Amino acid sequence: MGAAAQAHRLDAALEIVAFEKSDWTSYSACGIPYVVGGSVDGLDKLVVRTPQQHRDGSLIDVRIRHEVMGIDLERRRLEVRDPAHSRTIQVPFDELMLGMGALPVRPDLPGIDLPAVHGVQTLDDAGHLLHHAESRECRNVVVVGGGYIGLELAEAFVERGMRVAVVEAGPHVLGTLDADMAVPVEDAMRRLGIDVRVRLPVTGFADGIVQTDAGPILADLIVLGLGVEPNTALLEGTGVDLGIRDAVKVDQRQRTNADGVWAAGDCAESFHLVSRRPVYIALGTVTNKQARVAGVNIGGGYATFPGVLGTAITKICSTEIGRTGLNMTEATEAGFDYVVADVDGTTIAGYLPDPPAIRVKLLAERNTGRVLGAQIVGGRGAAKRIDVIATAITAGFDVQHILDLDLGYAPPLSPLWDPIAVAARRALALL
Amino acid sequence: MGAAAQAHRLDAALEIVAFEKSDWTSYSACGIPYVVGGSVDGLDKLVVRTPQQHRDGSLIDVRIRHEVMGIDLERRRLEVRDPAHSRTIQVPFDELMLGMGALPVRPDLPGIDLPAVHGVQTLDDAGHLLHHAESRECRNVVVVGGGYIGLELAEAFVERGMRVAVVEAGPHVLGTLDADMAVPVEDAMRRLGIDVRVRLPVTGFADGIVQTDAGPILADLIVLGLGVEPNTALLEGTGVDLGIRDAVKVDQRQRTNADGVWAAGDCAESFHLVSRRPVYIALGTVTNKQARVAGVNIGGGYATFPGVLGTAITKICSTEIGRTGLNMTEATEAGFDYVVADVDGTTIAGYLPDPPAIRVKLLAERNTGRVLGAQIVGGRGAAKRIDVIATAITAGFDVQHILDLDLGYAPPLSPLWDPIAVAARRALALL
Repeated sequence: MGAAAQAHRLDAALEIVAFEKSDWTSYSACGIPYVVGGSVDGLDKLVVRTPQQHRDGSLIDVRIRHEVMGIDLERRRLEVRDPAHSRTIQVPFDELMLGMGALPVRPDLPGIDLPAVHGVQTLDDAGHLLHHAESRECRNVVVVGGGYIGLELAEAFVERGMRVAVVEAGPHVLGTLDADMAVPVEDAMRRLGIDVRVRLPVTGFADGIVQTDAGPILADLIVLGLGVEPNTALLEGTGVDLGIRDAVKVDQRQRTNADGVWAAGDCAESFHLVSRRPVYIALGTVTNKQARVAGVNIGGGYATFPGVLGTAITKICSTEIGRTGLNMTEATEAGFDYVVADVDGTTIAGYLPDPPAIRVKLLAERNTGRVLGAQIVGGRGAAKRIDVIATAITAGFDVQHILDLDLGYAPPLSPLWDPIAVAARRALALL
Repeated sequence: MGAAAQAHRLDAALEIVAFEKSDWTSYSACGIPYVVGGSVDGLDKLVVRTPQQHRDGSLIDVRIRHEVMGIDLERRRLEVRDPAHSRTIQVPFDELMLGMGALPVRPDLPGIDLPAVHGVQTLDDAGHLLHHAESRECRNVVVVGGGYIGLELAEAFVERGMRVAVVEAGPHVLGTLDADMAVPVEDAMRRLGIDVRVRLPVTGFADGIVQTDAGPILADLIVLGLGVEPNTALLEGTGVDLGIRDAVKVDQRQRTNADGVWAAGDCAESFHLVSRRPVYIALGTVTNKQARVAGVNIGGGYATFPGVLGTAITKICSTEIGRTGLNMTEATEAGFDYVVADVDGTTIAGYLPDPPAIRVKLLAERNTGRVLGAQIVGGRGAAKRIDVIATAITAGFDVQHILDLDLGYAPPLSPLWDPIAVAARRALALL
């Protein structure tokens, strides 16, 4: 919808038709945990623009409850199912924008289709989840997978007064962090009363339990937080090339290999600015930027999407987490040699009462000092500091550049040397 | 002391002597308002390193209560007064580091020397101020000058339960902001109960009152927050060149024009990275960076200080303020043609309860789109966002670069499009 609105803005004469399988358009799926936790009063609050608003504002012919079943690039038409009228229609097009998003990973395990097992990818998913959670007999929640959404939902269920376990097959939650940075997050979750179980693959689901190698875990409600995969099965045989993890291959203008076919968002690849490789990163920020670029180009303008750093932040209770660029695993895998600076500090002047702690981990390339990535865990004010490092990486800065930055200082907001500069200084010494 | 410690780190064989007129070294003068306000329990908490710690840790011969009275560059020696022993000594040197700091501006007004009129530049000043404030008859406080320190002190006195007025001769408080960005700060101060009086020059001081053109204002205690000037009178006739506002002229290695004489901090000039002109900016962040560079060079290493952006942040009650680069007055004065993007948003997702407001003002050069400066006023999480813009300006980014940045997003920490990116998008449209 972002691409559609943008294209309309550039060329109001375009006839734009959008097909959406569900009832909803343009909503913040990232906000679902806050509806579950009760701080946001209803899923409709997450809707940024309704289908009708798109129709009225951008003259986009949005057809909800329509599912695209087939794409024929030679004859330039779509096969679209309209279940309300029990029919399948053929829709011609000149330009095709693919914004099919992602599907939550659903492992092929016994009991995966039980009604207690929920995904949280769409507002419809969230509606089912909430309906279930509000039923009286729901006391124990198990979140399968310790990613961002999993952790945010775990906190939300704690806020609802439920007993919550997070079961993660890997060695730590938040696999996009290095292990040493994930540990304080797990500590924070445990302080919140969450039963964090790592290195524990789920083997199946049954009535009221999640089965694991370490025995059953009580579960009236189960949430899958195992990440997503590109929703691109529809493209098989169409001639549109898929790339990493079967996401749509796109160039810097969001063009696919097929003439007049564009893609953006969770169904598409991104280009990583540090590793210089295609990556699959399903985040709302990336989606919106890619969609804007696709829309400008479809509308006859010119725009490019330079790429991503995998910047991500979250907050579990009072613990904030941020990461950008490459972590150690990714940097090693991409062939970089680097030093690692770890520093502990405070987000505000240390002499003020109860200064929140912050740990910054910075990876800098050996010899050049170029910043490759960073991770932050800390209290209030910690996470968004990652943006400074993301900006510095985008600029190709080395750690000396970061040390020289004229960053803001005021005792209730920052120590004199911002923790990021302290990390840069440490890295400089190591280099 | 920062330069001394750094020089020692590079060359432990250096014989380093430091002269300090007061009893204190290496303290956070910026922390004084928080001692006054009561959240920090005593001025000694602001001391980062005592004279004895410098002696023990870096073998620096720190001589407190010693005042340098004269500098003879030809004979390479200092004349130093040691009042405790009622003597004046001659001290030879090879290299001389000037770190004389700044003096608070004390206008030549009737009554300026009354005991009720306080500066807040040093810990000694703060000691006198606190002693006065703790006396029983102190109810009304007038802060003369609406700069950062003035505002922070005004809030501190409100926290102590006093009646506080801030009297500013200019049209608005915080003269480093554009007028439209200062207004919400003044509103926040008034909500706190502070009597904000602008366009009101003080004409004198008398027992219990501050005199103005608009009549007297009750004042048991008066604090001068009129800014500072370089403490460089001692250099007159020495051959050390002074520059803007009589601050010591230095090059990128913190060398003065005189051989073997270095300067850093509030007594020295800085180079502005956007206007490419010398500027006088007396801030702790700049001081510490310059001191580090001077120390490396004095210690036989090589370091340069690239320059400043005039980044500054502060917090008045729950209102956060940040600025970096050039404001409109400065940009115009430096000869730039530019567009101005103003956006209002929230620091977190708007659908969460009570999202703090944020206003971002971005100046971008016409034609190139290069970011020249920015100002931010808003609630929790607003001020430190200025660091992203400071980093972007340092990188020479244009507004499209900012729009493309992979900034962190999570509903409780940021809207999907960070307000900074929204401002960049607005600027792009204006360009």
